[in-house]
Amino acid sequence: MRDPPPHLATPMILVLQSGASEEQIQHVVERVESLGMTAHLSRGTYRTIVGVIGDERQLQETPLEAIPGVARVISVMDPYKLASRESHPQPSVVDVAGVKIGGGHLAMIAGPCAVESAERMDSIAKAVKAAGANILRGGAFKPRTSPYAFQGHGEDGLKILRDTGDRHGLPIVTEVMDPRRVELVVKYTDMIQIGARNMQNFVLLTEVGKTNKPVLLKRGMSATVKDLLMSAEYILSQGNPNVVLCERGVKGFDSATRNLYDVAAVPAVKALSHLPIVVDPSHATGRPDLIGPCALAGVAAGADGVHIEVHDCPEQALSDGEQALLPERYAEVMQQIRRVAEAVGKSISN
Amino acid sequence: MRDPPPHLATPMILVLQSGASEEQIQHVVERVESLGMTAHLSRGTYRTIVGVIGDERQLQETPLEAIPGVARVISVMDPYKLASRESHPQPSVVDVAGVKIGGGHLAMIAGPCAVESAERMDSIAKAVKAAGANILRGGAFKPRTSPYAFQGHGEDGLKILRDTGDRHGLPIVTEVMDPRRVELVVKYTDMIQIGARNMQNFVLLTEVGKTNKPVLLKRGMSATVKDLLMSAEYILSQGNPNVVLCERGVKGFDSATRNLYDVAAVPAVKALSHLPIVVDPSHATGRPDLIGPCALAGVAAGADGVHIEVHDCPEQALSDGEQALLPERYAEVMQQIRRVAEAVGKSISN
Amino acid sequence: MRDPPPHLATPMILVLQSGASEEQIQHVVERVESLGMTAHLSRGTYRTIVGVIGDERQLQETPLEAIPGVARVISVMDPYKLASRESHPQPSVVDVAGVKIGGGHLAMIAGPCAVESAERMDSIAKAVKAAGANILRGGAFKPRTSPYAFQGHGEDGLKILRDTGDRHGLPIVTEVMDPRRVELVVKYTDMIQIGARNMQNFVLLTEVGKTNKPVLLKRGMSATVKDLLMSAEYILSQGNPNVVLCERGVKGFDSATRNLYDVAAVPAVKALSHLPIVVDPSHATGRPDLIGPCALAGVAAGADGVHIEVHDCPEQALSDGEQALLPERYAEVMQQIRRVAEAVGKSISN
Amino acid sequence: MRDPPPHLATPMILVLQSGASEEQIQHVVERVESLGMTAHLSRGTYRTIVGVIGDERQLQETPLEAIPGVARVISVMDPYKLASRESHPQPSVVDVAGVKIGGGHLAMIAGPCAVESAERMDSIAKAVKAAGANILRGGAFKPRTSPYAFQGHGEDGLKILRDTGDRHGLPIVTEVMDPRRVELVVKYTDMIQIGARNMQNFVLLTEVGKTNKPVLLKRGMSATVKDLLMSAEYILSQGNPNVVLCERGVKGFDSATRNLYDVAAVPAVKALSHLPIVVDPSHATGRPDLIGPCALAGVAAGADGVHIEVHDCPEQALSDGEQALLPERYAEVMQQIRRVAEAVGKSISN
Repeated sequence: MRDPPPHLATPMILVLQSGASEEQIQHVVERVESLGMTAHLSRGTYRTIVGVIGDERQLQETPLEAIPGVARVISVMDPYKLASRESHPQPSVVDVAGVKIGGGHLAMIAGPCAVESAERMDSIAKAVKAAGANILRGGAFKPRTSPYAFQGHGEDGLKILRDTGDRHGLPIVTEVMDPRRVELVVKYTDMIQIGARNMQNFVLLTEVGKTNKPVLLKRGMSATVKDLLMSAEYILSQGNPNVVLCERGVKGFDSATRNLYDVAAVPAVKALSHLPIVVDPSHATGRPDLIGPCALAGVAAGADGVHIEVHDCPEQALSDGEQALLPERYAEVMQQIRRVAEAVGKSISN
Repeated sequence: MRDPPPHLATPMILVLQSGASEEQIQHVVERVESLGMTAHLSRGTYRTIVGVIGDERQLQETPLEAIPGVARVISVMDPYKLASRESHPQPSVVDVAGVKIGGGHLAMIAGPCAVESAERMDSIAKAVKAAGANILRGGAFKPRTSPYAFQGHGEDGLKILRDTGDRHGLPIVTEVMDPRRVELVVKYTDMIQIGARNMQNFVLLTEVGKTNKPVLLKRGMSATVKDLLMSAEYILSQGNPNVVLCERGVKGFDSATRNLYDVAAVPAVKALSHLPIVVDPSHATGRPDLIGPCALAGVAAGADGVHIEVHDCPEQALSDGEQALLPERYAEVMQQIRRVAEAVGKSISN
Repeated sequence: MRDPPPHLATPMILVLQSGASEEQIQHVVERVESLGMTAHLSRGTYRTIVGVIGDERQLQETPLEAIPGVARVISVMDPYKLASRESHPQPSVVDVAGVKIGGGHLAMIAGPCAVESAERMDSIAKAVKAAGANILRGGAFKPRTSPYAFQGHGEDGLKILRDTGDRHGLPIVTEVMDPRRVELVVKYTDMIQIGARNMQNFVLLTEVGKTNKPVLLKRGMSATVKDLLMSAEYILSQGNPNVVLCERGVKGFDSATRNLYDVAAVPAVKALSHLPIVVDPSHATGRPDLIGPCALAGVAAGADGVHIEVHDCPEQALSDGEQALLPERYAEVMQQIRRVAEAVGKSISN
Repeated sequence: MRDPPPHLATPMILVLQSGASEEQIQHVVERVESLGMTAHLSRGTYRTIVGVIGDERQLQETPLEAIPGVARVISVMDPYKLASRESHPQPSVVDVAGVKIGGGHLAMIAGPCAVESAERMDSIAKAVKAAGANILRGGAFKPRTSPYAFQGHGEDGLKILRDTGDRHGLPIVTEVMDPRRVELVVKYTDMIQIGARNMQNFVLLTEVGKTNKPVLLKRGMSATVKDLLMSAEYILSQGNPNVVLCERGVKGFDSATRNLYDVAAVPAVKALSHLPIVVDPSHATGRPDLIGPCALAGVAAGADGVHIEVHDCPEQALSDGEQALLPERYAEVMQQIRRVAEAVGKSISN
């Protein structure tokens, strides 16, 4: 594991309970100091506040909230380091077999949910390439809610995807779910996808962090922006700097859309981190009629790319056909994306 | 109250419980028919399904789920009528004292959260007008979470807002909270705002529905798209057709932003309704640094306008200063909005 | 309006941005001091923190976050005063025409969603009284999502409810939605209900705060515990101390239940406030089969009462029939509630 | 993999778009029939509805929503089979090394978040055993949001936990995160825990499904009740029938509690499934002062057990100390749990 950055002096703030006794206050101070940290006491009329300075790794591992008399612990610095903009002020540009993502370069990732057959893959790849896509996607290992649903073609699927990408000059991205299969998937793909359901599968994150492949890390359905960056930190901390984040919708209360597309997460991530972030309006909305408008919204908000599922016969798709765009519609959306990209000063890599 | 559209034959579907007895099935059919509706029985191996056709007002008032043996009631048609696209296929254009909203015309609503003084109002109005805003906002009656917070200047505030708008050639919009004050507010304003917390204040909706003033109806923090359209229906059903919806963020779990900006609601509303919809990135994000990107996202997604809070000294604002843009920054955002608007084929009304 | 408690010295904490300049730091201090507050500076290696002491009303009205260089504002004390346990350490007991709520006394509120007819009201009242209910509910003014749905019988409904309560020796509670009708409703009822959709209708809260009637304040669907207490503060600040809170479910993402029943809000409220709180499993779950278990959960968690909708023919109810219990089932649930109440050392008032 | 139950005739309902053409309707029918399913057409004035009967595995794999003209697909039967109450009407009782869970028997699972040392484990085990706990918990592999936080003692931790359990006569439960470690963990433990973040780690679910060990499956933070049952189905479908579910809070918008404790999920699960379900108020609330009330609420709502983190010096805990109960407080909570358990007719296994 890569060394974390040199010990930073991180302030934490302990707000004591309103009725904290003198003894409790003293115990808090002693406890903090016994851990090798410094305590700064500030007594108000109603509350006492203790500023804590110390080694942040130590601070993260110590449950200061559990000290009697402590009402709240407020962390002032971000818990991620390598992912933070403070540690790396310039935006990162990730290179996926020649296609740049970030720093003004837009990734246009397209393809079917699952790799179904060589023929279908070929016709879809041809269509999305013609429309301007620059990375081809397709699942060989599929996370399915039901154990009885189609789970993907496995290594055969990887081979088809690899061949199709090569034939059409498109780098490929595909999901890995099993830490025992990372080596296999890495052999075939140009970019590894970590799905939303595995965003906090720390074992898997660690495993892909040990490779050097670009990783497309999708935001979990109930992950905060901070959670997403912490998961990126897992990968970065293993030595793999090639992480691209993906906003794909979080859980919401309105069934009008499958998920709630959190487009504000795009600039919110950029304020905190140097990592590129793309949007996935297919999974975010689950509705083909909303994919176009939401793709444009993502680009306008500053996203570094758009991930869209495309299938040439959605009603026969083996997985998620109901949210796929037809190739003709994808081509139209790409036209509009180009115009909006230009309006915000970006261009599609190729 | 305006007559609802002529009785429509609305199908509802009753899914019976898996163990529903023959007697229960018969009772369901009798009950449906006793209400003057027609029942279509469809027996499956495991479940029986009953299609119900009848007068939809009757259907809405009858708790079919409470009939013994009924497991689920599925409503097939939308419960709003006047707000629906089916009843009015063309997009509506609302005219606010000469400024058009909808049908390709963008409203740019800007101004401080609260009307504070004539001088401040004047300098802000001058700045937003110069930047390209076409409607001036400002609160005279403020909904504040704390009873001890500044509640607005009342009628004096309305007078200042009216004068300022007239002097700068900007129509004005201001919030009303009290049904007893609708008459007063209507006397001064060009457009009435219903705030998010009052979206389901049906008494207030009914009252503004009786006027002819354009209404800016903000989405409640836990309102679905359907709830929002039902609240619009309240206003429309009273005879006031001039409703403009506003997406301003819903409750979310991530404190990275104040609310969760649901930009997909813009095309989702447009799929269901002919009413114009604007976005309010100020309230949606609560963070000045995210307002610009989220304004662009809204326009790219198809919104009919953008509502932004602007204050020339946010740190002295009497309300919500922390989410206001400075006039200079607003002018920059307006430049970007113009470029994105052009990219999606729209223009700012004036 | 009642005077708020004497000026308390309230600490706020300003966390400055990591790159805040010396000038910004000085401006923050000057700004704080110009407002008559005291600033305590604490410089860390990476961040500077400013503790602010001052008059809390002033603090609440000042957007400290908008001062350049300020990254976060952390409020240490609660913004509600009269509702807080700090201001009133003993639990309040609210008396509703002789029925005590709080301090070990449980309110059992039952009745139909809407008052439909004198006969129906009578038979339901008789049944719930026999089962052990001690307060009768019924709506005369109904907040309905659809303008076309049954809106209640108005004053006629109030008369029926009053008569029924008197005949069966049950105090009554009914909802008011319109500030112009508060006087009318107060004339008839023993307790006023503020519905979830009006929890932040500050005009209405102020109006019922001016009366002396007990108020049943239902939690809004997206209201935090703090929001709920702030709304109670509106009523209390007008001089009406008789507020009973009600947890009735918040918006959730799982359609398995109508709302998400937040039973932890019961002890969370009790940790912060002296006000009684009851639970409403009817609205929280929207499913008759879950009402019993969730009622027991509420009592076990420390609630001061249970609000359940009961109807003797749910399938003919004019409103919300699908979530009503039959009287026989209500009687069974009451038996179980008595056992759980005893297990936690409480009893049902009468 | 175990065979799913024999082909069931599963109705699905297709609601067609309001303007669906005659050709589209015919295409839908042909498409359904080409898949070997039967279509029942029901034409309304405004909408046409198609009932579909067929092999449910086929139905689950076919994206019927993607057929042109289809507006909505409504599934009438549950997608889980082995987990459903329909397939197994009696409640399951899971035996964990002699301790029964379900069918009136309550599991009281207690222990520290992480196994820290043999001494600490011993003193905690002694205390919780004395208080009435019947299963000992402790983590040897810890899922931590930060890669820099303590990750558990691994196999050494497993040995300590095994020894401690044996010495105090308590079966043990511990988490597994890595499919490559399932064999190792199974060697030591009596029950395997799948954490919330891994609830949809289908690779891991499949792996534990191949063992015969009881599994404690925690609900994911954004998982619906149906999602939870589908994840249980993964384990069951591999041949392992010993699944115990655990409600531990879902994501909510109110920071008053760490998560939103969904106590209604307990009876909601019981309505759909025969599997036992326990509650975890420690993770659900993240606040020691709420653990007791929420534990009681869970038992009152029908839970088959309670999982509580206990630590004898929370402020020195290596993980999650801020949500642990002290042994003395745990003993008090256990006293109250016994009384509420008795009130609902249950008892603690031993």
